[in-house]
Amino acid sequence: MQVLVSEVGPRDGLQSIKRAMPTEAKHRWIRALAAAGLKEIEVASFVPAKLLPQMSDAAEVVREAVKIPGITVLALAPNLKGAENAVAAGAHKVTLPVSASHAHSLANIRMTCEESIEQVGRICAFRDSLPAASRPKVEVGLSTAFGCTLQGDVDEDWVFDMANRIAAKGADTVGLSDTVGYGNPVQVKRMFTRLLRELGDKAGGAHLHNTRGQGLANVVAALDAGVTTFDASQGGIGGCPYAPGASGNIVTEDLVYLLESMGFDTGVDLEKLIEARKVFAEGLPGEPIYGHVADAGLARNFRRAS
Amino acid sequence: MQVLVSEVGPRDGLQSIKRAMPTEAKHRWIRALAAAGLKEIEVASFVPAKLLPQMSDAAEVVREAVKIPGITVLALAPNLKGAENAVAAGAHKVTLPVSASHAHSLANIRMTCEESIEQVGRICAFRDSLPAASRPKVEVGLSTAFGCTLQGDVDEDWVFDMANRIAAKGADTVGLSDTVGYGNPVQVKRMFTRLLRELGDKAGGAHLHNTRGQGLANVVAALDAGVTTFDASQGGIGGCPYAPGASGNIVTEDLVYLLESMGFDTGVDLEKLIEARKVFAEGLPGEPIYGHVADAGLARNFRRAS
Repeated sequence: MQVLVSEVGPRDGLQSIKRAMPTEAKHRWIRALAAAGLKEIEVASFVPAKLLPQMSDAAEVVREAVKIPGITVLALAPNLKGAENAVAAGAHKVTLPVSASHAHSLANIRMTCEESIEQVGRICAFRDSLPAASRPKVEVGLSTAFGCTLQGDVDEDWVFDMANRIAAKGADTVGLSDTVGYGNPVQVKRMFTRLLRELGDKAGGAHLHNTRGQGLANVVAALDAGVTTFDASQGGIGGCPYAPGASGNIVTEDLVYLLESMGFDTGVDLEKLIEARKVFAEGLPGEPIYGHVADAGLARNFRRAS
Repeated sequence: MQVLVSEVGPRDGLQSIKRAMPTEAKHRWIRALAAAGLKEIEVASFVPAKLLPQMSDAAEVVREAVKIPGITVLALAPNLKGAENAVAAGAHKVTLPVSASHAHSLANIRMTCEESIEQVGRICAFRDSLPAASRPKVEVGLSTAFGCTLQGDVDEDWVFDMANRIAAKGADTVGLSDTVGYGNPVQVKRMFTRLLRELGDKAGGAHLHNTRGQGLANVVAALDAGVTTFDASQGGIGGCPYAPGASGNIVTEDLVYLLESMGFDTGVDLEKLIEARKVFAEGLPGEPIYGHVADAGLARNFRRAS
């Protein structure tokens, strides 16, 4: 059975690191990730350069990435303007940040949850106005769906109220994101089971963080619920790295190891993926990255699923 | 539902660190672990002092630990002589290292698998010769049950052949150990399901390593199979730390966080458990320890199961 690993390092990872990776180095890293077999890569964020100077080359990065055959190029866009720019650069898929926590929504994107739902509608209308050939997919990941550092609990019924309304506005998929690493396997299984039941084909993937070391445990629970798409970042960069070692996103290398050893086919060549860490390191020398599999090496009897 | 967390740090952890923790510091650390609510602690290994000088105070450590009310004190014994010494010191439970990998068995305890099964029989006979009141429980953890760095694959039918024969020799419980961090959730669920089916009341717990970051993912799978006892070590010390960060045992703090957040009752107070890391650090200043939960802190909305 195939599982899609969606690499978010070049966007989610790099935007949380203060210094910028040079544009040429981003190109090389993205090519190395694609060469390892990753089929979907989130490469840039179309936000004002004064807010995130690390992403000021977003258009150039997307234009280069779409030249790589066989991959889906994602870009994050926080608003209509960003979505227009992402599409102009050729992004195959636009991902919109929508938060299920009222407090996080105001702090992160300065919109209420209601306003951000309305905005999804405007971006989907823009998509529908495009010629069929240049229409991107619109993906929403509902941030803080499992709890929020500002608000604490996030009501589950509210999460699904939002998810259903976002799907009705025209989003192609709506996934759930454990932005701050609060999720546990019981909750993850319950919520993705409900997401798949309520949204059907529009149920999106799992974006899980490893802040409290629970990332891969939550992946097992999500797999059990039927999830087939997982975000991860090379070396675990990005997310909310509160402390050294307490990485943010789940580590792509460790995730691929887990999935392949469980018999899921990711299409990723782990050795090549581990090699790509060097390409990252050339682009941001000295930047700490994590990963148990890269540190310990593959098991002697490791077998790929396919 | 209750789950037993069996702390192995003072034995498995300390014996893999070259310098010795002073005996008084061991007493303080074990008391701190017990004060955090851990109900079972493996405190020492009865092996020749020339092989493991870190464990030369085993008898003294056991004698002190059994004074702590309400905990089960475990000691490892590789042979009859060790078991006799463990019992003389007052250990409540003796754990015997038996390897399912022929290559690992020879390398680790210089016995074939057959010889080590025979030895379990001799130690159980010794136990049965004791007055009922001083009889320890005899626990076997089958090492390298999920694969071996020396041998590669370990045949599953062979693992269960050994487990059944060890139970027939009189061991109270037989658990499965992923000594080198090779296990994956599909395998872990399959094997513990079979262990519980074949051994019933004699099915022991899971000793899982985090060498490749898969430890807690494997815990989720083992819970699903019905396992209710898990080994772990404070700060992830011990096991096979191939590289910095690639810790050996699963981290007790992260395991307790997982279990409690899933609604299992461990009886452990996480704040006190995290405090106990300081007592460890006083005993072995500068020794690296790991743990995502200790680094990141508890979630704002974290709730204990009980």
